[in-house]
Amino acid sequence: MKKVFGYAAPSPTEDLGPYHFERRDPRPDDVVIDILYCGVCHSDLHTARNDWGGTSYPVVPGHEIVGRVTETGSAAKRFRTGDFVGVGCMVDSCGHCFSCFHGEEQYCENGATYTYNSIDPRDKLKTFGGYSTMITVTEKFVLKMPDGLDLKGAAPLLCAGITTWSPLKHWKISKGSRVAVAGLGGLGHMALKFAKALGSEVTLITRSKGKEEDAFRLGADNVIYSTDEKQMSAAKLTFDLIIDTIPNVHDLNPYIPTLKVNGTLVLVGYLGELEKLHTAPMVLRRRAVAGSLIGGIPETQEMLDFCGAHNILSDVEVIKMQDINQAYERMIRSDVKYRFVIDMASVKEGK
Amino acid sequence: MKKVFGYAAPSPTEDLGPYHFERRDPRPDDVVIDILYCGVCHSDLHTARNDWGGTSYPVVPGHEIVGRVTETGSAAKRFRTGDFVGVGCMVDSCGHCFSCFHGEEQYCENGATYTYNSIDPRDKLKTFGGYSTMITVTEKFVLKMPDGLDLKGAAPLLCAGITTWSPLKHWKISKGSRVAVAGLGGLGHMALKFAKALGSEVTLITRSKGKEEDAFRLGADNVIYSTDEKQMSAAKLTFDLIIDTIPNVHDLNPYIPTLKVNGTLVLVGYLGELEKLHTAPMVLRRRAVAGSLIGGIPETQEMLDFCGAHNILSDVEVIKMQDINQAYERMIRSDVKYRFVIDMASVKEGK
Repeated sequence: MKKVFGYAAPSPTEDLGPYHFERRDPRPDDVVIDILYCGVCHSDLHTARNDWGGTSYPVVPGHEIVGRVTETGSAAKRFRTGDFVGVGCMVDSCGHCFSCFHGEEQYCENGATYTYNSIDPRDKLKTFGGYSTMITVTEKFVLKMPDGLDLKGAAPLLCAGITTWSPLKHWKISKGSRVAVAGLGGLGHMALKFAKALGSEVTLITRSKGKEEDAFRLGADNVIYSTDEKQMSAAKLTFDLIIDTIPNVHDLNPYIPTLKVNGTLVLVGYLGELEKLHTAPMVLRRRAVAGSLIGGIPETQEMLDFCGAHNILSDVEVIKMQDINQAYERMIRSDVKYRFVIDMASVKEGK
Repeated sequence: MKKVFGYAAPSPTEDLGPYHFERRDPRPDDVVIDILYCGVCHSDLHTARNDWGGTSYPVVPGHEIVGRVTETGSAAKRFRTGDFVGVGCMVDSCGHCFSCFHGEEQYCENGATYTYNSIDPRDKLKTFGGYSTMITVTEKFVLKMPDGLDLKGAAPLLCAGITTWSPLKHWKISKGSRVAVAGLGGLGHMALKFAKALGSEVTLITRSKGKEEDAFRLGADNVIYSTDEKQMSAAKLTFDLIIDTIPNVHDLNPYIPTLKVNGTLVLVGYLGELEKLHTAPMVLRRRAVAGSLIGGIPETQEMLDFCGAHNILSDVEVIKMQDINQAYERMIRSDVKYRFVIDMASVKEGK
């Protein structure tokens, strides 16, 4: 076993603090990764605080991992020592169900193994995430980082990036499409960048005033306010797709009429009950409300390669591991533009 | 103008009764139809009682019309005197928007003209429906009835039929698909027949016991009860499509987990607020909730031709026009298997 140092939440109500634990020695198909950066996702906080239930403590969060290969298993052929690699929300899946067979491991019918707070089906050990010095991962779930891409800005691509990329591709957004992004945070800012880079006309729909400058810089062609009935009414029948990144309970009814016939509003940022939905605007225009979860491994690689080719990065604020608890508080207040990324050198110094 | 006799609701709270009115003489592209049968749809009742608002009284309901051509306009080329024809929920649309151009006139961006309770955009006169002796309709919105199809059993195809056919085709149901139908009424019984005829494996999901015999006869392979948690849990990840024909407020949450990854629940029978929807089962499996409205004219003809080829009819109970008010009361109690159809000979006798 390999000794690892990281930060863990010991209970739902306590701050994250230093935690020593062990990871497996590499299996034949494993890659051992020295973690350089790890993004901070809302899911980390939800899991640390047991907002969704099911958290097994202590929990080491973190699933936007970028690092360098230090060792490879005897049968691992895809990577070499020294390669820059990424690990996202999943570290394994059954590999043989319909979804896995089609490279959509996030929908594995037997349940994907998540990067933290899961049980590894092979050794029955709990998984620990990227707020730590190193990680051992099955090579199939390791992504190649494109040459030249800034590693700290790339870390959030592994979750915030793929979560917004996947629905854009699934709903076939391309040149000439019209896309709206609801909510401007970690997910929203990536959705704006991707929708623009894919050639669509992009609108940010937001509740908060004062987002225009950032929105236009990030790729929006238009900004409208969800609370402004006139603007929302003028946007009737406009969008092929709305990527809804709003992270808490909200009312979809004002958004649905802005979809075209056959348009879809896709929820990517909220697990919970919605306000009551009125069916008429859906029935009368064959509109849909759907959900989408991160993305599969092949499309995550495709997204990273696209980011490499177009130099697309997340806008990040780099923090030390020791500052994670303050970062969580700031994240709750949306006081980050637009993603915190932990520099793991801070963990190694503090070891 | 042509003198017409029919039945109208004079107000939201009064029974339907005899009503004399006029229709236009045929325009060059019109067909004049002697109405033989007219199906009785829940929308007729909702409109008569102003359940959705917007009813202009007196209203003559009826949009499942089968009849015989008695006269054609000078430029009308598709039909001849004596032809058996059908008219559904629409009698006109703008003809040039994206939806009309693609034969989906029900989603006309400028608003389709409905068979009753609409204003004809050309002469600004109110439209009156099929509870009447004759109707004048633009030939583009007139359907050809397949030879040999029983006319009274075919009348409900014009609304109940196409409303369930259209989503089955849109979501590409075919041999090997798994379809569930929620609710067994006028729409549900057609959905069972069509889903079976298209080669899918069909399940009826119902709240009410005692539906098995009918369900199996109509095409169901399985029947499960939405209130039986064990059965619903056993059906997890089963259906490509759920056609939800339930006509009143209900809770979709028990149904969503029975959809496969990428599955869709499509609402076809209810305009109103739903119980609060939980997003997790949608996000975690990329499932969708959508709506669908009747169908376009080309696909209505396609559906009728399919019914002609496979001898598919609605199960109907033929009534006299004079019995419409009792029929409405029975329809509210779901006391009809599965559609009332008015024999218009009764109107002509009572003229």
